[in-house]
Amino acid sequence: MDLWHTERQSEGTDLRIRVEKILCEHQSPYQKIQVIETRTFGRILVVDGYIMMTEKDEFIYHEMIVHVPMSVIRDPKRALVIGGGDGGAVRELVRHRCLEKVDLVEIDGEVIEASKRFFPSVASGLGDPRVTVHIEDGIRFVAETGDTYDLIIIDSTDPFTGPGEGLFTEKFYRDCDRILNKGGILVNQHESPYYEENASVVREMHGKMKRVFPICTVYQAYIPTYPSGHWLFGFASKDVSPSGDAVPGRMDGIETGYFNEEVRAASFALPNYVKELLE
Amino acid sequence: MDLWHTERQSEGTDLRIRVEKILCEHQSPYQKIQVIETRTFGRILVVDGYIMMTEKDEFIYHEMIVHVPMSVIRDPKRALVIGGGDGGAVRELVRHRCLEKVDLVEIDGEVIEASKRFFPSVASGLGDPRVTVHIEDGIRFVAETGDTYDLIIIDSTDPFTGPGEGLFTEKFYRDCDRILNKGGILVNQHESPYYEENASVVREMHGKMKRVFPICTVYQAYIPTYPSGHWLFGFASKDVSPSGDAVPGRMDGIETGYFNEEVRAASFALPNYVKELLE
Repeated sequence: MDLWHTERQSEGTDLRIRVEKILCEHQSPYQKIQVIETRTFGRILVVDGYIMMTEKDEFIYHEMIVHVPMSVIRDPKRALVIGGGDGGAVRELVRHRCLEKVDLVEIDGEVIEASKRFFPSVASGLGDPRVTVHIEDGIRFVAETGDTYDLIIIDSTDPFTGPGEGLFTEKFYRDCDRILNKGGILVNQHESPYYEENASVVREMHGKMKRVFPICTVYQAYIPTYPSGHWLFGFASKDVSPSGDAVPGRMDGIETGYFNEEVRAASFALPNYVKELLE
Repeated sequence: MDLWHTERQSEGTDLRIRVEKILCEHQSPYQKIQVIETRTFGRILVVDGYIMMTEKDEFIYHEMIVHVPMSVIRDPKRALVIGGGDGGAVRELVRHRCLEKVDLVEIDGEVIEASKRFFPSVASGLGDPRVTVHIEDGIRFVAETGDTYDLIIIDSTDPFTGPGEGLFTEKFYRDCDRILNKGGILVNQHESPYYEENASVVREMHGKMKRVFPICTVYQAYIPTYPSGHWLFGFASKDVSPSGDAVPGRMDGIETGYFNEEVRAASFALPNYVKELLE
């Protein structure tokens, strides 16, 4: 008997992955969490039916959401991750010795537990002494905190369902702007420009972010297990240009499977149809 | 009753697209040709069960296989397309007024007929007076022709099945080198680095091409309907650097949906794991 994970990527378009074994299937107070074992991708974390990460290619997403902004922030000391309960973004952040404090704010503690148990190499940075894990609502956290940050990473689920929705509002971006230091950068999971279902979110998100941040663009990476494989990250700042030079030495000693300085610069080169989508 | 096109992308990994209507289904002497109508991608040309092009995103592949090399060849007069019977590469080539002659060599005349009938906007360049269509074996053509070219485009199917196989041999690349002018460029469909099935072809192809051409690299584009969406093109030459500047004015008056000068330069920035694959 064959077992398949079937994910609707667009109307009448499915990615189907054969499941060798279901390792975990659990309804948390916020969402349905599954961990499945597959041949091609290794283990996959599925939340509310959508692939969040796979062992095969999580390095692409996590390297690109962290090292692109970290390459150009002059003097980063404090980073905030909203969502990202799998720990992958934190793992990449703590490789930067210059960071003194990393706050992870994840609403669903059961995502963290699942990651620690089934993806120990992804969750490996969560024990770093500079990291504080806050199990609480990221929207409330950014609205109420007295702290400020040099880097804010919004590593959220899609806005379609579940607790991710409030992370795509102008109010939330304004609260992020309030706690973002000068010289700091906000990056976020920004969907895909290709399928209309995702592209309409890109258009809306980008419009809201542009009203809040003086500098606002997107960059991209090849992430085959997300719909279309053409994935965007938002890049927003009060004053840091995305086309600026990398800080010398920032990546020294940090080995990567996807990211390098040429890839960083190239990731901001947008195809014409993506530029039009953002206008 | 639902009808689906199911394409195996990797072991236990399928892309399934709902078919509204089968417009054509035909066994030519070389391969099975299907044209299907879908909601999300418009019409799709399927050959031996693999998606060759879709109305939604054929512009990405065809712009990138043509305008990337055309941007840097100093004085291109003559172009050769091997395969590419849909006419998409020719359509982009004939937008360049500087070209005086375009030879298309397609082994399967029925691909050309299907494209003219079902994808008239893709096949639209085939009637240009500078274009000669040769219905013959591209392998024999390059071995026997007395002509030489400034640009050779190998727009082939995969090497897995059918007539495309011989377009992936060192002998074929040597024949191409013989008919490639100084200052000229060869580009080819170069598979994907992501799934092992494609990556092993990339490794083998690139090894053979490196033995023939002094300059040899790959560039990439986001093509969501090909496996993984991360697609490579080979770039080979006797003497033209891929990192060279574009010829001023070369793209004047040519409107594109994907290609632009920043995208061209960025397409050569390879992720670390792709670099390792090519070594």
